[in-house]
Amino acid sequence: MSRRITLLTDFGSADGYVAAMRGVIASLAPEAVVDDASHEIARGDVEAAAWALGRYWRLYPEDTVHVVVVDPGVGGTRRALAGECDGRFVVAPDNGALTHVLAEAAATRIVAIENEALARHPISRTFHGRDIFAPAAANLARGGPLEALGPVVADPVRLPLPRPHRDGETLHGAVIHVDAFGNLITNIPRDWVEVRGEIVAGHVILGSASIGPVRGTYSEVEPGQALALVGSADLLEIAVRDADAARALGAARGTEVQVRIRSSPTA
Amino acid sequence: MSRRITLLTDFGSADGYVAAMRGVIASLAPEAVVDDASHEIARGDVEAAAWALGRYWRLYPEDTVHVVVVDPGVGGTRRALAGECDGRFVVAPDNGALTHVLAEAAATRIVAIENEALARHPISRTFHGRDIFAPAAANLARGGPLEALGPVVADPVRLPLPRPHRDGETLHGAVIHVDAFGNLITNIPRDWVEVRGEIVAGHVILGSASIGPVRGTYSEVEPGQALALVGSADLLEIAVRDADAARALGAARGTEVQVRIRSSPTA
Amino acid sequence: MSRRITLLTDFGSADGYVAAMRGVIASLAPEAVVDDASHEIARGDVEAAAWALGRYWRLYPEDTVHVVVVDPGVGGTRRALAGECDGRFVVAPDNGALTHVLAEAAATRIVAIENEALARHPISRTFHGRDIFAPAAANLARGGPLEALGPVVADPVRLPLPRPHRDGETLHGAVIHVDAFGNLITNIPRDWVEVRGEIVAGHVILGSASIGPVRGTYSEVEPGQALALVGSADLLEIAVRDADAARALGAARGTEVQVRIRSSPTA
Repeated sequence: MSRRITLLTDFGSADGYVAAMRGVIASLAPEAVVDDASHEIARGDVEAAAWALGRYWRLYPEDTVHVVVVDPGVGGTRRALAGECDGRFVVAPDNGALTHVLAEAAATRIVAIENEALARHPISRTFHGRDIFAPAAANLARGGPLEALGPVVADPVRLPLPRPHRDGETLHGAVIHVDAFGNLITNIPRDWVEVRGEIVAGHVILGSASIGPVRGTYSEVEPGQALALVGSADLLEIAVRDADAARALGAARGTEVQVRIRSSPTA
Repeated sequence: MSRRITLLTDFGSADGYVAAMRGVIASLAPEAVVDDASHEIARGDVEAAAWALGRYWRLYPEDTVHVVVVDPGVGGTRRALAGECDGRFVVAPDNGALTHVLAEAAATRIVAIENEALARHPISRTFHGRDIFAPAAANLARGGPLEALGPVVADPVRLPLPRPHRDGETLHGAVIHVDAFGNLITNIPRDWVEVRGEIVAGHVILGSASIGPVRGTYSEVEPGQALALVGSADLLEIAVRDADAARALGAARGTEVQVRIRSSPTA
Repeated sequence: MSRRITLLTDFGSADGYVAAMRGVIASLAPEAVVDDASHEIARGDVEAAAWALGRYWRLYPEDTVHVVVVDPGVGGTRRALAGECDGRFVVAPDNGALTHVLAEAAATRIVAIENEALARHPISRTFHGRDIFAPAAANLARGGPLEALGPVVADPVRLPLPRPHRDGETLHGAVIHVDAFGNLITNIPRDWVEVRGEIVAGHVILGSASIGPVRGTYSEVEPGQALALVGSADLLEIAVRDADAARALGAARGTEVQVRIRSSPTA
């Protein structure tokens, strides 16, 4: 048995911490294929890790083991979690890194990793990625049962996700992620601005800046011009063609977004 | 059947876009080995992507599938390409990313990816890496025929490569790539400066700076000193020992280079 | 036969140099699994490469081939090395990159790579990663004997590792590595500050800054506060909770550290 493992951390690669995790996995589950999702999450940015994991967890085949180690609370009282979510496994500190997976999965089973017999010893107090999470992932990759890791947890930490709302003819949302291109991804879903492939949204406003109508694609505006469009996460995005919208528009995670609606969208 | 796939993008890794592509490939071609070539191409720099691909495409074994997604025109009218070049496969937007491969390959067959039955649906207008290029690559990795992707294309986009020329006793060229070490790689080929292992080039001039003769290796000059030598791409390079030549010499892609020839080189 | 290979370089990925090495390996040892340890070692920083390799070399299973190409002296007179150290293989320039492995391994056998029949030709004078180290690693991964690469070397280069010492009630050490989080890792080992799980160290001083007692974990201090603790390398570390200690405390590799001892530690 050989499941695939993905790794998402804020370690960077240069200190050998990621390779240490890979080495532990290679020793315990030599047949597992290990993919680097990223090691460049901003240091301690659990929200960004949760977002990134949300982009890919379900695109991988069933039985994949997705590991997240963005773990500013390592060594403190936060629990270590493992889970099965719609057929994929997850391994992460209990700090909200699983927020998007838990919001999207129909069926989830989460346990606290407490079985120290499955850990690497001695367990350091600063590097659970190597000593707890990697061994747990290797165990799952070899087909070990989730329950062997520890007791069921009913209340994994979830980050508060800002919810969009509608107020008359206006949708109110916020930027929830800024990607490496500087694109501003909002929490306004595709079906609030588009009905049967037809865009029903009118004007988009970011903070106090007028962005214009919702477009189909970047090439509908000139280079350097801002636009709104539905992005690859099926959420409204605000971009600047061939440029960095976050920088150009002075926006960040949390910046408010408003959309005027022209006709009644179905929810 | 399980071919190897390489990925070259300007996505960075932190947003989960690369992992989304890997997830799609893992689902469609689970046996394929996927190598990250790089995800750190400068944003939208098709020329740099074409250069990087040129460094490795032919070193991989036959049947490898090389994917490039540096794609500022995504969602616009540019075509999506797949091809077979001297036994390796390529998958990329039609924006010049294949320029060096096409210049180097003896036999090429290029098609436009138009068969939407092989794509991931719904096809987003901003992320063809996930929805079009990754599925096409997975299809080729599983041994699917190139022609199944779409019709033959006779005129893939090629970037204009500046050509070196000779004017009497002087070779005229230009910097065509600056690498991460700051080395300045020119378009002057080895056999213009070296005949039967013997250097025939005389003095090298970068812009208006005198660099000196063509050396054999870095250690022939002192740390901090500039030198010219034939680099690993069999092209004349200008470097500064243990330092960043681009910064030290104020040069960039496009900076002119002149070489005085001492005797008659064979072409 | 198919051994695992790890790659550690200062190349960055964007120029295609790493992919060139991977392509050579894929052609020569197609069954080998290749892990990227890192390509983000600071340019030419052999000491950082040696440290990173020290974090993971032994965690990988026996027969793994660890390749390091941080090689400012490429093309000069430095030797190319391959070796077997406690069952793992290493391939690296002879510049100190193996310092920590050699210090930790009980049994080592080192050879100079001189057999040009096993290299890629023509051998460039600037990219031995592609032409010498990758082919050597592929050869070892396929089970080729170490001795086929070249003659035994008795004196591989070792970097001078600063040694901690004890002077009465005071331990004297130094920062030997700064990681990407800004944590300051010292050369003072766990068993100098801890006896049978009990901390015997008293006050820690970094340069002229008072850090306080040795703690168990980050959460014992407030965010933004400095602390000393035993890190994942079993060495005393100085950190700032949720911040960058190197920046906050103005420290770097080489900064002196003193620890007052409360009772007599066993060595």
